[in-house]
Amino acid sequence: MNIIIAGFGTVGQSFVQLLMSHREFLKKAYGLVIKVVAIVDSKGAAVSQRGLDLNLVMRCKREYGTVAKAASVGYEMNLLEVIRSVEADTLIEATHTNLINGEPGMTHILNALQLGLNVITVNKGPLALAMPMLKEIAEHKKLALKFSGTVGGGLPVLAFAKECAKGDRVVKVEGVLNGTTNYILTRMEDGLRFDEALVEAQEKGYAERDPTLDVSGMDTACKLVILANEVLGKRVTLRDVKVEGIAGIKPEDIKMAKGTGKTVRLIGVADESEVFVKPLIIDQSDPLAVKYTYNAITLTLENSGRHTITGKGAGGRETATAIIRDLISIKEHLLVT
Amino acid sequence: MNIIIAGFGTVGQSFVQLLMSHREFLKKAYGLVIKVVAIVDSKGAAVSQRGLDLNLVMRCKREYGTVAKAASVGYEMNLLEVIRSVEADTLIEATHTNLINGEPGMTHILNALQLGLNVITVNKGPLALAMPMLKEIAEHKKLALKFSGTVGGGLPVLAFAKECAKGDRVVKVEGVLNGTTNYILTRMEDGLRFDEALVEAQEKGYAERDPTLDVSGMDTACKLVILANEVLGKRVTLRDVKVEGIAGIKPEDIKMAKGTGKTVRLIGVADESEVFVKPLIIDQSDPLAVKYTYNAITLTLENSGRHTITGKGAGGRETATAIIRDLISIKEHLLVT
Repeated sequence: MNIIIAGFGTVGQSFVQLLMSHREFLKKAYGLVIKVVAIVDSKGAAVSQRGLDLNLVMRCKREYGTVAKAASVGYEMNLLEVIRSVEADTLIEATHTNLINGEPGMTHILNALQLGLNVITVNKGPLALAMPMLKEIAEHKKLALKFSGTVGGGLPVLAFAKECAKGDRVVKVEGVLNGTTNYILTRMEDGLRFDEALVEAQEKGYAERDPTLDVSGMDTACKLVILANEVLGKRVTLRDVKVEGIAGIKPEDIKMAKGTGKTVRLIGVADESEVFVKPLIIDQSDPLAVKYTYNAITLTLENSGRHTITGKGAGGRETATAIIRDLISIKEHLLVT
Repeated sequence: MNIIIAGFGTVGQSFVQLLMSHREFLKKAYGLVIKVVAIVDSKGAAVSQRGLDLNLVMRCKREYGTVAKAASVGYEMNLLEVIRSVEADTLIEATHTNLINGEPGMTHILNALQLGLNVITVNKGPLALAMPMLKEIAEHKKLALKFSGTVGGGLPVLAFAKECAKGDRVVKVEGVLNGTTNYILTRMEDGLRFDEALVEAQEKGYAERDPTLDVSGMDTACKLVILANEVLGKRVTLRDVKVEGIAGIKPEDIKMAKGTGKTVRLIGVADESEVFVKPLIIDQSDPLAVKYTYNAITLTLENSGRHTITGKGAGGRETATAIIRDLISIKEHLLVT
């Protein structure tokens, strides 16, 4: 399989590291032989039809801040030029999330699909803004569009949902989908004020310097859009989600909930009638009442009730594992058809 | 698909009800057309190559306590005689769990495999006692042996594990696998003594009149054997599991754990070196610290960390859904090969 990687930050680099350390395993267990024919970052590209020397590009990125400086394979090219210059079958889109217009990921995905490449994205932006359209284009082109890494980090949420739904029907999805806000709410339970808990989360590296995307509920909303489209078959985008964040929650609210065996969690909910993100008061015994940076997703099935999966939210290595999973299922799919 | 049902208690009847209400859905969504050609209970059998009238056998079971009294299709036959008298491709084994010798389920499964039928069992006994052997026979005969309903009720644990392991490796399985003992431990956290909590669990229908199988940890051990074989690829049976139950736990133990942010859960653990069931002290924030009758299974993956799935433990309808899932995957498998 010849792949192109767009975006070479934490996730892109973790993925390449995983590829290097698991080359033999992937070949033996899945017959998966992966050749990285190009990596594109914000300053340029490294391209080699014979397969890049991954140690070289990693070292180059570390030393010069861009893969484009790798001698003999480095170029000042953008993704479109790269796609046209090499033979590849799959694009891995791992640039940063942009909720205004989804760029540069949106153009990357559209170009790749247009030119006949399967796409694996770990970037939520384009999906949050235009998932129904992107899925339609991929279907029309008979290409794969995969995105396991966008929800729940390493958790195989989407595959789990598909399996649960065999012979049954998912009627509702609820999720604690953002580790940062969950950490803050857990620490508020311990008695901290919102601002104290936020500073602590930033110190521990759980929250960004600008925590708006998390605290406002927008990150949760993006993931909810993906779940609603994929698990419930709805056609929704970020515009359709009513979003309320956690900035307004007072210590008293949490204390009161705690006194009655309950707790507050920022939850994304999608069912047949609505799609919203909101702090909700739930039972401490509810499987969604996970603590610290854990994520949890509950599916309500028509016949078999509520099933929950839980795990740590995103991390480079976890998300990289999700990309590998997507590559394996693209390969399996190619064999079947 | 022509199926035979052995054992017609809560699960068997829930399954038949689900079949009746979902006939159209299963046909439309999966091309699955199921004909029940025989049902065997402890007093005899109802057999019809053209397909049993399911309303009739349900009514007959309700009124006479056995399907064998259904006029024109009722016989005094045992399963082996039934298998020989009709054409069927799959046996659903739903008799009671027996941990002494696995009977009558063991003989049912062996006969079915011997005579060329796929097997779906929701009965843990035969697997706990002889899973490595049964799997080998099924493989040798190129038949399916499915058992989704034996662990975690409606939770698709086994499929989840398979998906998690794509491009990764499960190194450890831990589980709260028994709702009865988990209910008792949760109520002891609330201040009840063991015997008080047990009586309450019995009153609510969560515990059997004879709660030995649950309280001793044996039920947990059975499910752990199935997980260890299937998820970790170990070759173990019930004999290989060190088992300690919850009868010795004192209110003080639980109080002390609670005072330090911890809690006690009966956990089955399997990894490369050991397989045991034991009450363990874990963090209240651990995803395994589920409450009341919830079950939880945590898989530790080499690359992507700990993933947990949570849901209510067994129930007739939940287990029936698991049977449907197994039927669907047998059908999908038949199409592939």
